[in-house]
Order: sequence, then structure tokens, then C-alpha cells
Amino acid sequence: MTEPLKIAIAGLGTVGAGLVELVQRQQDLLRRRCGRGIQIVGVSARDRTRDRGCDLSGIDWYDDAVAMATEASSDIFVELIGGSDGVAREACIAAIEKGQHIVTANKALMAMHGTDLARRAEASHVTLAYEAAVAGGIPIIKAIREGLTGNAISGLHGILNGTSNYILSVMRDTGRDFDSVLSEAQALGYAEADPTFDIDGVDAGHKLALLSSLAFGTEVDFAAVHLEGIRDIVADDMRYARELGFEVKLLGIAQRLEDGVRQRVHPALVPLTAPIAAVDGVFNAVVTEGDFVGTSVFEGRGAGAGPTASAVIADICDIGVGRGGHAFGMPAAELAAKSSLSMDGHVGEYYVRLKVLDKPGVIADVTAILRDESISMESIIQRGRSPDEPVDVVLTTHDTRESAMMRASSRIGALEAVCYPPFLMRIERY
Amino acid sequence: MTEPLKIAIAGLGTVGAGLVELVQRQQDLLRRRCGRGIQIVGVSARDRTRDRGCDLSGIDWYDDAVAMATEASSDIFVELIGGSDGVAREACIAAIEKGQHIVTANKALMAMHGTDLARRAEASHVTLAYEAAVAGGIPIIKAIREGLTGNAISGLHGILNGTSNYILSVMRDTGRDFDSVLSEAQALGYAEADPTFDIDGVDAGHKLALLSSLAFGTEVDFAAVHLEGIRDIVADDMRYARELGFEVKLLGIAQRLEDGVRQRVHPALVPLTAPIAAVDGVFNAVVTEGDFVGTSVFEGRGAGAGPTASAVIADICDIGVGRGGHAFGMPAAELAAKSSLSMDGHVGEYYVRLKVLDKPGVIADVTAILRDESISMESIIQRGRSPDEPVDVVLTTHDTRESAMMRASSRIGALEAVCYPPFLMRIERY
Repeated sequence: MTEPLKIAIAGLGTVGAGLVELVQRQQDLLRRRCGRGIQIVGVSARDRTRDRGCDLSGIDWYDDAVAMATEASSDIFVELIGGSDGVAREACIAAIEKGQHIVTANKALMAMHGTDLARRAEASHVTLAYEAAVAGGIPIIKAIREGLTGNAISGLHGILNGTSNYILSVMRDTGRDFDSVLSEAQALGYAEADPTFDIDGVDAGHKLALLSSLAFGTEVDFAAVHLEGIRDIVADDMRYARELGFEVKLLGIAQRLEDGVRQRVHPALVPLTAPIAAVDGVFNAVVTEGDFVGTSVFEGRGAGAGPTASAVIADICDIGVGRGGHAFGMPAAELAAKSSLSMDGHVGEYYVRLKVLDKPGVIADVTAILRDESISMESIIQRGRSPDEPVDVVLTTHDTRESAMMRASSRIGALEAVCYPPFLMRIERY
Repeated sequence: MTEPLKIAIAGLGTVGAGLVELVQRQQDLLRRRCGRGIQIVGVSARDRTRDRGCDLSGIDWYDDAVAMATEASSDIFVELIGGSDGVAREACIAAIEKGQHIVTANKALMAMHGTDLARRAEASHVTLAYEAAVAGGIPIIKAIREGLTGNAISGLHGILNGTSNYILSVMRDTGRDFDSVLSEAQALGYAEADPTFDIDGVDAGHKLALLSSLAFGTEVDFAAVHLEGIRDIVADDMRYARELGFEVKLLGIAQRLEDGVRQRVHPALVPLTAPIAAVDGVFNAVVTEGDFVGTSVFEGRGAGAGPTASAVIADICDIGVGRGGHAFGMPAAELAAKSSLSMDGHVGEYYVRLKVLDKPGVIADVTAILRDESISMESIIQRGRSPDEPVDVVLTTHDTRESAMMRASSRIGALEAVCYPPFLMRIERY
């Protein structure tokens, strides 16, 4: 009889409690698939008295995750605390030094310190696994690292944050504006009290930096991810987009170009016919482009107790059966140095929404600026006519260099008849 | 310096040549990701003189795959011959007995002899891997076996045959009938000269039997797969389906029910809003339902040299880095015995197309038969009125037991005013 695989779980929030439930409920299944039982030998969290709706009897309790990392007799340290620094990082480092494998759902930690942690894990001959850190229930880390391993990947894009995707879906379906939908999402528990990471693209950026590193074999470079969120999108944008044949999505996009890698998170217009346009609500999706395999699409729940616990246990079982391997699909020393490109050199189509005073000559002024910057227009929509109130003008461009677009935007915003700076979104034709 | 991983490739058709190209072109990438080089030490095929567009210099040639399995100094025997028996099976068994790992793209072989080959591989302590056998470039075997391992899977469904999906897509888009589209697909190389396996559901059934075994932990049971193909679908069916809010797809469906597993391949009407409804042309897709992870969708190219070679190399690298594991996610001895359910007990909605003489009382006779069998109608469409020519009547039912539907269908077909047996398709509401 093989010894059970011993795990210690740091952090007993929704995901931690979900993991305890999964391990307990699927005992027989896991024993068949993993070849040995899985035993929770320790848990740690701040508040011992809180009822988490799961049975913790017979499991050692630690108030301090770092103490558990050094004292518990676990084979695997499961980090579900969160946060890029502080106790999560400290505990992971302590556990690695003690020779424990790490399974983490912590995208911030991995995005900020992933390469360093991978080096430490290698030095201690342990596995560092983080399937749950990206796109919850979608086994996308494994798919890129192992399933597509024979491909040079030229790019990937995805909906990586369920909260913002949910907000955008509701805005589109109800015509309500951002603030109202966000408040409702918070009341329903789909958005956090401090929603910054979700709606400003930070969370999606963390995940993108990890996917990018895996896909291109480069060191994790979150600092280089261009980040824009969804706060400035109004319900009218969804309507204009639809009218033009697009859906608005917050995308994470990573591209391997001749001179480096470009990583960007921003709202984008995608054609209604793109597979990713149909991914609504709290679902996540990732689309990859490999030179041999072509286009692959992966879709599933992005967060929540069940999907995240499902990803955590997959990593645990991989380690249990000896399928560990390198965190980024190759030894950390083999990862190429960072060579991230800024947005200046980006070339693409743009959606531009202006609020203008409905006076003669405004459109002529706007289009003259575009001409000066060699920006070619694809379409223009002007809605309503009202001599007293500002009206929306929406235009789309053909391929344009980002730096030219930014100069034009700033000049257009300075026109007297233009009420405030133009709102821009990029158009991505998948 | 680690020794290169030595592979022998049996079968140099499109996929074999694609694999040779991949191994040669991605040498550096594979060395980084696999930790060692990959060396092709032997190839075998029937015709040595044929130009396959790939460089075979320095590689030992074998006319006989079985001889290569026993004589080549390979670590891995890659079987790309095809066919459920004969030389493919013989060579795999010989290679296993010689202690070689097996990587195969052969769904027929795995569907007919998968459990037996898995037992043999275990007895010889080698890996049996077959990612390329199902859904080409989609790493679905790995996703179910490893990524979703913590889930009890209740069901899965998918578009598993690109040829038939392509034919159905073209029929829908052009309004042309089956025979004409099939001929064109054959001319374009999308369908084989003998298209039986693709269009009669056999190929999809082979793949479904493998996914089913992986998902439910049961012995492979291809014989129990209920098979219906797409020959009898007419272009009008696509139009009627659209009118009712559906798309017609050839689906493979596996369900775990209380009393066993039901596996079926047949054309089905799926709602236009289902993710799978949008999967067109030569693409494949698989949708899984896990108790913790919820719904996951995997989509990609189902066949072709590139995608299939991508899957083969993933298996090779897994073995190269020691990520082998059991063929069906657990030791063959742990797989539950077959307990497959027939279609008689299936309950679902039906689409029924009749050709009737436009005479008073026909619809009354048809609906009386449905009433006698306690079948409740959801909708009825009658097209055209022409006293001399037969007209189409299309009806859909609420949930109905298959056995009752079959009795009703046979009685309806026997009515004098009904020109030939009703054409039935099942409706699946995903």
C-alpha cells in the first residue's frame, strides 16, 4: 500500500474550503486516478473560529502559514492565501527550502516572483505548479506547457477576468452603465469590495504574464504588460460596437513579434463571429496560435470554489504521480531574458468615440487631424442632431500606428468643439 | 549531456511526414522543452521510392513495421499506420514486448484493443499514449486524464469528425444535398475515397469510446456505441433546423447514468446558442461536464498533418520528461467493467421529417399515432400545398422515450399517405 500524499493548505477562503470538500468527497476517485490517497495534514488561516462549512477534524491547525510550511509533515504546500508579497511569498519560500512541492492559485505572486520561485524550486528539486492561477477551471497551463509543446506559439489572447467580462455582458444586455452594473456585481458577490484589480486589468495582466512566459519561453515580465481597464466604457459603446459588427471584451493579448514580445490588456472590439465574442458572463477563454496545431480554443469557468479546487487538485495529482516538471515548461535558466515591446509600435485598427458640439466644421477639423497623422478612416457614425447638446461621433480607422493615434487623439481632444478627450478602443480581428 | 530520445516512426503518410518535419524544424524548441534532443532512428513504410517531401537521410529504413519494432534501437515506437488490426497492432505488441513506449494516432486500434494494449503496456512498464487519436490538435486526452482528474464527469459531447462536420457546414451554407457535397469534399481531399468511417459515424465512435473510457474510468467499449451517420440528411433539414432555432451537427455523446454509461454517435439538433453550434468546417470540439469544474469547452483542428503531428510530439515529450502515466488515467485493472446502456431507454426530444401526400386526414392519422404512444408534440411545420406532389411535414416532440418514438415512427411510416419511413434526429439542448 502506497503512503498517502500529504498536503498542507494555507488559506481557507472559498477556494480552500472548496479544496477540502473536493479531497473529502472524491477520495475513491482520487485514489484510483492518483494511485494513492490524498491526506490533508495541516491547514492554516487567520480566524480559527469561523465556520467554513467543511470538516476540519483530525487536521492540524496553524495560525501562521510560515510555521505550517516549516513544521507540517506535508509533501505539498498548497498556497491559497493570495497577495504578491508578505506571508504568501514567505511561506512558499520556506516550504520550498524545506523540500516541499508548491501548488498555488496565486497569480499576483507568480506574476511578480514567478521566475525567482521557479529557480528556488529547481534548486530544491521540487515542483512549482500554478494551474489554478490562470483561468480557474480551464487546464490552460497544462495545455500550453505540455499539450502544445511541439509548437512555436506566435500569439495568444483571452478573456482572463470573469468579473469584468460579467460586467460587460450585463452592460450590453441591459443597456445600463458601468457604475450601476459594478454595484450590482458587488452585491451579488461577483465583484470584490475593492474591484480595482479586476476592472483595471491588473488581474488579467497577472495571468497574461504567466501565459506569455509559458508560450514564448521567456522570463515572467508583468511590469511590461500594458494595462487598461473597463471603467471608461459606457453602455453606448456596446451599442455602437454591435452596430459595427463587434462585441466589446476585456482581452489579454500576447504576441511574439520579430523584435520581442508584446503583452497588453485592454478592452477591444472583436468580430461577432469570433469564438471569443460568444464567451459571456463569468466564463474565461483562451485562444492560442501554434505553427503546427493552428488555432486552439479553451473555455470554462474562470473562478469560484469548484473550478479553482479542480485546478489545484490536478496539480496535486500530477505531483503525486510524478508528472511534476518545470514551472514554465523548461528550466528557468533556459527562459529567454525579458524583451518586451511598448505599445508605441503597435499597429492596428481603432474605435474612437467623441462627444462634440453639433456645429459646422467639427467633423472637418477632426478628419483634418487624422489626415495630418496619415490615419485612414474606415467608418463614421454620428448620432442625433441637437444644436444645444453635445452629440456622439464614433469612428473607426484602418491599420494605424499607436503613436500616431495617440498624437491625433490628443489633438482632437484639444479642439474647442470636442467636449472631452476621445475614448479609444482597439479593434482585434480574430 | 543527456542522450537524445530515440524514436522510430511506422507509417509515412501525411501525418508521418508532418512529424518528421516537426522534429527537424523544432529541434531547438524541443531540446529546451523536452530537456533532450529527439532523434528519429528509424522509419517504415510500404513504398521506399515515394517522395514524401521530407528529409529521411541518416534514418534507417524498414519495409516492415514489425521488423522495425523489434530491431530498431528506439525508446519510443510511433505507430501511424492505421487500422484496428493487422500490422499496426502486431507492431505495437512487438514494440511493447521489446520494452518500447508506444505513441499512436490510431483510433481504430485503440477503440478495439485499447484496454488490452494498456494491460500489455503496464506489464512491460512502458507508456501507451494516443493524444493524436482523438480530435487532432486538441489536447483533450490530457485535459480529461490530468486537467479534470479531480472531477466526477457526468457527461461529454463533441464534434469528433471533421469530414462530416465540413459536409454539414457546406450543406447548410450552400443548400446543396449530401451526395454533391461529399463528391466535392473527396475532390478537395477532405473526404477519403471510401468515406464510410467518416460519414457513418464509425470514426467519431472510435474517438467517443476512448473519451468515454477516460472520463468514466471504464474499459473501452466501442461495440456498445450506438452509431448513426449523416447520409440521410437533406439540405431541407438544415433549413428546417435553422427555422426552429437549431444547427445540425454529427455529435458523439457519452453520459454516465445511474445504471451505466450510454455512448452514442448521431446527427443532432443543437440550439444555435450552444458553443458547439458555432464549430464549423474541419474543426472539432469537445464539451465536458465535471462536478467541480462545471462546463469546459475545447476546440481546435481535428485532423491534418500539423495538428496531428503536434499531438504526437506532445506524447513523445511527455514520455521524454517522465510524464508518461497510465493510458486511461488509472491502471487497467482499476477500470470498471463495461456496463453500456442501449438506446431503448434514452429519453429526449426528437425532430421528425415526413414526406406525405397532401390529403385530408394525414396529419390526424400521424398525430393519433403519437397520442397512442404518449408522445407530446412541441411544434409542427408543413411546407407548401400541392395536391399532386408529396409535401414535407416536420414536427418536434417533447421528451420522449426512444422505444416509444421508434414504435411510432414505424407505424407512421406504414401509413398509406406517408411516402417513406420518417427521418428522425435527436434534439440535444446544451
